[in-house]
Amino acid sequence: MPLPAVPQGFRLGAASCGIKSTPDREDVTLIVCDDDAVAAGVYTTNLVHASSVAVNRQKTPFDRCRVVVVNSGNANTCTGKRGERDSLEMLSLAAESCGAAPHQALVMSTGIIGVFLPMEKVRTGITTAAARLARDENALAAAARGFTTTDKYEKVAGRTIEVAGTTIQITGIAKGAGMIAPNMATLLATIMTDARLTPSDAQTSLQAATNVSFNSISVDGHMSTSDTVLLLASGKSSPVPLGEDDLATFQTALDEVCVELARMIPADGEGASHLITLDVSGCRTREEAHQIAKQVAESALVKTAVTGADPNWGRIVSAAGQAGVPFDPAGMCLSMNGRAIFQNGEPVAFDAADVSRSIRKQQETHVELSFAEGSASTRFWASDLTVDYVVFNSEYTT
Amino acid sequence: MPLPAVPQGFRLGAASCGIKSTPDREDVTLIVCDDDAVAAGVYTTNLVHASSVAVNRQKTPFDRCRVVVVNSGNANTCTGKRGERDSLEMLSLAAESCGAAPHQALVMSTGIIGVFLPMEKVRTGITTAAARLARDENALAAAARGFTTTDKYEKVAGRTIEVAGTTIQITGIAKGAGMIAPNMATLLATIMTDARLTPSDAQTSLQAATNVSFNSISVDGHMSTSDTVLLLASGKSSPVPLGEDDLATFQTALDEVCVELARMIPADGEGASHLITLDVSGCRTREEAHQIAKQVAESALVKTAVTGADPNWGRIVSAAGQAGVPFDPAGMCLSMNGRAIFQNGEPVAFDAADVSRSIRKQQETHVELSFAEGSASTRFWASDLTVDYVVFNSEYTT
Repeated sequence: MPLPAVPQGFRLGAASCGIKSTPDREDVTLIVCDDDAVAAGVYTTNLVHASSVAVNRQKTPFDRCRVVVVNSGNANTCTGKRGERDSLEMLSLAAESCGAAPHQALVMSTGIIGVFLPMEKVRTGITTAAARLARDENALAAAARGFTTTDKYEKVAGRTIEVAGTTIQITGIAKGAGMIAPNMATLLATIMTDARLTPSDAQTSLQAATNVSFNSISVDGHMSTSDTVLLLASGKSSPVPLGEDDLATFQTALDEVCVELARMIPADGEGASHLITLDVSGCRTREEAHQIAKQVAESALVKTAVTGADPNWGRIVSAAGQAGVPFDPAGMCLSMNGRAIFQNGEPVAFDAADVSRSIRKQQETHVELSFAEGSASTRFWASDLTVDYVVFNSEYTT
Repeated sequence: MPLPAVPQGFRLGAASCGIKSTPDREDVTLIVCDDDAVAAGVYTTNLVHASSVAVNRQKTPFDRCRVVVVNSGNANTCTGKRGERDSLEMLSLAAESCGAAPHQALVMSTGIIGVFLPMEKVRTGITTAAARLARDENALAAAARGFTTTDKYEKVAGRTIEVAGTTIQITGIAKGAGMIAPNMATLLATIMTDARLTPSDAQTSLQAATNVSFNSISVDGHMSTSDTVLLLASGKSSPVPLGEDDLATFQTALDEVCVELARMIPADGEGASHLITLDVSGCRTREEAHQIAKQVAESALVKTAVTGADPNWGRIVSAAGQAGVPFDPAGMCLSMNGRAIFQNGEPVAFDAADVSRSIRKQQETHVELSFAEGSASTRFWASDLTVDYVVFNSEYTT
């Protein structure tokens, strides 16, 4: 499948400088904005976070962004003062490479925790990446590889929309949630668009899109120290910012790009054999639906049941019951892959072997859980829990 | 090791009636109080719960308890109206067997979810168990076996204390958290004592003891539908209820009994290769310390690190950071098995191979996490996460 186009106003470059143990795999990426662009960001809420997260959070949203520098293979987290200095040097080098000022740069790091960045290599990587800046498919693919750690494949998605007679391109890159030896899965994503947005509209749109996508997925429920989602808007498609109606159209497309990227993460999750797509409906608020979905999706017993193609509904309904959301169990219904299993709080006779076969033969398992509390709903994606997950994560790595 | 004594005023009987698939393994247990006893209870907060939980919750604390009937192998949960009728019949049969009224009986069920109780077998079981009531060690051991499902061993603990010139015996039985095919681990416990307590003191003491014991353990973070801890006080040791000072002495011993039983549960957890004992200190409140401990103990990445004997501190400190408790990361310290690994927010040089060896050679791994926020602390116990856990729980069972 061809990659989506790079939106106007952006160039990308990536280089392999030896931070990652996989030689010849890109580990430094530059995303350069030809002129000042709007940048918005959504970050991990973990109190223990990378210095890059702290640096970016102070800046976004703003309208003077010129460059994002990304390294994979080292998260530069829990590295104290020296780690902060290294982040600042990355910003300076990235800015210098495209004639910008350090305050116009953002930085993302993913990989091992608690190890200092090999700055000699990083410096070489930034110089090499800067010499390769381009807008073609190869540059986009190399940048996407430069984001990855142990992802099995790179993650790119895009949408082209027509708004008020102009064409707008939205193209995003993401990584995660393969295990990052020896630490946790991190999610990094950057969405580029040539739409013209105000900083505040960009921030609002990105937060909304993140809620229904990157914040609605789980591999192992362990929140990373580096999770970062950025939206860069070059404004090249139009001299005027999008108005209210056009913003709604843009939001729909942005949501789609983010959902497409987000789904890939648990689908490519550590050792995953199934993507679990969970629809929770009939709740009073989306937040309550989300809370129930997250509890079910993160239950080791639910995940292992899907791994074993076992329509073990007791695990699902009991996980819902511990989510801290009040509901009447007599109004609960459950179906798996379209087969009704539990209705209005009572088990129904169902063909367990048939449901099991349907789980076994598809890569995606669809769980629908409904309540009689209201009309709010949500969708959530998770990976299952396999022997491979445990093997990978219990290998001695420190 | 000899079992502790059965406190005065209690007799126990157990029978194998074929509810469990393991033949000749007791699956119906009666605990009979010779005269009216005080009973207190602490229950699962899962909205989806067994009808037995609803029945007991309405009664406790009260001072007219005469009998507790327990069956293992079937949780009688999600079984609708018929399940409720079956619970009520168990109460009637148990009460009848010892000349009491149904409102003087309590009931606990553990095992498979969503399957109706085989009441013919249960009736036979209660009759047989009633014919075997005794106070000796064999009766206690049989009762403890009657609580278990796939526990590898039965769980009994006791303390004898002297209070105001009288001897008080506290003896408890627990089960869990082996996997209960095809559903979740359930914790059942009954603590018997011959102390004389008011119903309200019994309830307060049991809640306090449960907080530091059964509510401070985790196997897989999945809250059961049937978790029940009962305290039965026959009052046979004294005609007057314990006063304030004596209650404090009693509380210490009750805490010890509950902690001893609670520790056995993750130690015998599904597939567990290590018991993780987690001390969290330097917090503003015990609740905040508990919240951090629970988040760390339930992290799949922390558990798999212990399985692999990997002193992977990044996983531990980042799990703490996502607990929702505000703290200054610069005040955080971590040690594993007594070796300092992370101090005041900075990694320290440590001998990783030495820490790894210490994890590998002991069944228990001790993790100490301290903060600079206050003086509150807590202790928490968890099992690690092994390939065996996933294999057991992903086997097709429905």
